Amino acid sequence: MKKAYVHGYDQRENIRLQDQASTLVELLHADTKYPAGSRVLEAGCGVGAQTTTLARNSPQALITSVDISETSLAEARRKAMAAGLTNVQFEQADIFNLPYGPDSFDHIFVCFVLEHLARPVEALHQLKSHLKQGGTITVIEGDHGSAYFHPDSEAARQAIQCQVELQRRAGGNAMVGRELYPLLRKAGFDSIHVSPRMVYVDSSRPELVEGFTKKTFTAMIEGVRQSATEAGMVEPDVFEKGIRDLYQTAGADGVFCYTFFKAVARRSPVAVTTGS
Amino acid sequence: MKKAYVHGYDQRENIRLQDQASTLVELLHADTKYPAGSRVLEAGCGVGAQTTTLARNSPQALITSVDISETSLAEARRKAMAAGLTNVQFEQADIFNLPYGPDSFDHIFVCFVLEHLARPVEALHQLKSHLKQGGTITVIEGDHGSAYFHPDSEAARQAIQCQVELQRRAGGNAMVGRELYPLLRKAGFDSIHVSPRMVYVDSSRPELVEGFTKKTFTAMIEGVRQSATEAGMVEPDVFEKGIRDLYQTAGADGVFCYTFFKAVARRSPVAVTTGS
Repeated sequence: MKKAYVHGYDQRENIRLQDQASTLVELLHADTKYPAGSRVLEAGCGVGAQTTTLARNSPQALITSVDISETSLAEARRKAMAAGLTNVQFEQADIFNLPYGPDSFDHIFVCFVLEHLARPVEALHQLKSHLKQGGTITVIEGDHGSAYFHPDSEAARQAIQCQVELQRRAGGNAMVGRELYPLLRKAGFDSIHVSPRMVYVDSSRPELVEGFTKKTFTAMIEGVRQSATEAGMVEPDVFEKGIRDLYQTAGADGVFCYTFFKAVARRSPVAVTTGS
Repeated sequence: MKKAYVHGYDQRENIRLQDQASTLVELLHADTKYPAGSRVLEAGCGVGAQTTTLARNSPQALITSVDISETSLAEARRKAMAAGLTNVQFEQADIFNLPYGPDSFDHIFVCFVLEHLARPVEALHQLKSHLKQGGTITVIEGDHGSAYFHPDSEAARQAIQCQVELQRRAGGNAMVGRELYPLLRKAGFDSIHVSPRMVYVDSSRPELVEGFTKKTFTAMIEGVRQSATEAGMVEPDVFEKGIRDLYQTAGADGVFCYTFFKAVARRSPVAVTTGS
C-alpha cells in the first residue's frame, strides 16, 4: 500500500487529527475497554491520535500499535511518551503482511484505516488470521456521504465531493463507514454488530460547533483545497464558497450532521477456518 | 393550506403510515410521556398513525387531536375506537387558525406535519400562542436528505429526489428534519433540544429490513412513481432502476440509513411574550 495518504502527514494535519480525537473521544471510544492481560493489536495507529484513549481505557491490556509509516510512528511514540503510557509498544508493520503468527491477539482495533485501503476485505481477512478464535475486532470509520447540513449548499457539497474523489483516486473510500457490515461479513467474521455514532451539531452545542463542524470536518475539507483545484476538480471560487458555506453551518441557525460507524465482530470460536 | 398532500390519502398510504408507526414506534415515541391530567394538543394527527401510541404512552393525559382533513379524521376516529382509546378527542381544525385560546394546553405534539407546510415558523408561532407558559412542544420530522445506503445508486438517489421535489412543489420540505433547531428558535421557543433518531438497517436486523427499508421508505418512494413520471422529473426506466436499487439495499450485503429528528422545546415561563 504505497498510495498517497490523502490526509497528509504535516503538522497541521496532526493537530486536526488530535482535535478530532479529543472532541469525539467519548462518542467513539467510551465503550471500548479490554480486560486485564488481554493482547490487543491496534492496526494502523497513524500518529497515535486514538492510541492514548485506547491505552487509558484499558490500562491493564497489552497493546501493540502498528503502522506502515515510520514517520507517523515516531509521532505516535512521542505522543505516548508524553502521555506516560506504559502498556503500548509500537512496531512498524504492513497490515497485509504482519509479522505475528496465528492466534496472536485477543482483540484487534482498527480506526480510520479501511478508508485508505483499496482492498479492505483482504485487510480484514489478514487481520482475522492473527486473531484468536472467539476474539473480537472493533472497526471505526467515518462516511463523508453521511454529511448534511443547514443551510444546504451545492458548493459545500461539491467541496466535500473533492475530498471523496481525491481519496478514491488514492485507492481509498471516504464513504466506507456504511459498508462495515458487508465488509466484515465478506471477511468471514461472525456476530457482527454495527453501531452508528451520529454527530449532531447545532448552536446549543458550542463545543461541537468548534471541535467538530469547524476544526474537524471543515478543516479537513479545507485541507484538500490545493490538491482539488490543481487537479481541476472544482473552480477555485466554488471551492471557496463551499468552505464559507460550511462555516455558515456553524452559525446560530446552522446545523451540521455526520455519522461515524463502529462495528464489533467476532472470529468464530468453533468453525473450522480455511485459508488462515 | 389547500395544497396537495404529497403522501395521498388512499388506503395503501394508510397502511404505509401504519407500518411506519409500528416499526418506528419505540425509536420515535418511547420517551414521550405526559403526566396525569395534562392537556395535550396533537396538531396535525392525519389518519391517527401516531395517536394510538401517544394516547397509550400517556393514559392519564387528556389529548385533543386535530387535523385539517375530515377524511383523515374519520379514519383516525375509527382507529382510536378500534384501539379502545378513551383519552382522545378529535376535532377538525387548521393549525394556522385554531379555535383554542391562549394557555389552553400544557403540551403540544407535532409529528410529520411541518414537512407539509410552506410557513413552518408561522405554524410553530401560532401553536406557541395556545401553549401555557412553561409548557413544551415536541416536534418529530424526517429528512429525506439523510437517506444513504449501500450499494450506492445514482438512480435511487434520483428517485428519492423526485419525492423531495414533489413535496417542494406542494409547498413542503422533505428535508425539514435537520432544520428543527432554527425553526423552533425563530418561532421564539426556549430550551430547544434536538435528538436525532437514526434508523440503521443491515441484514442482521430483519424486522427493520422489512418494516423500514422495504415497507416504509421504498414503498413511499414507489408511491410517487406516477406523479414523478407524469411531471417529467425522471425517465420511467431510471425511476424503476432506482426502486430496484433501493430494494437491493435490503439484501444480505445491503445497508440503509435514515434519520428522524425529534425536538423538545419550551415556551418561556417568565419572559413577556409579544404578538401572541
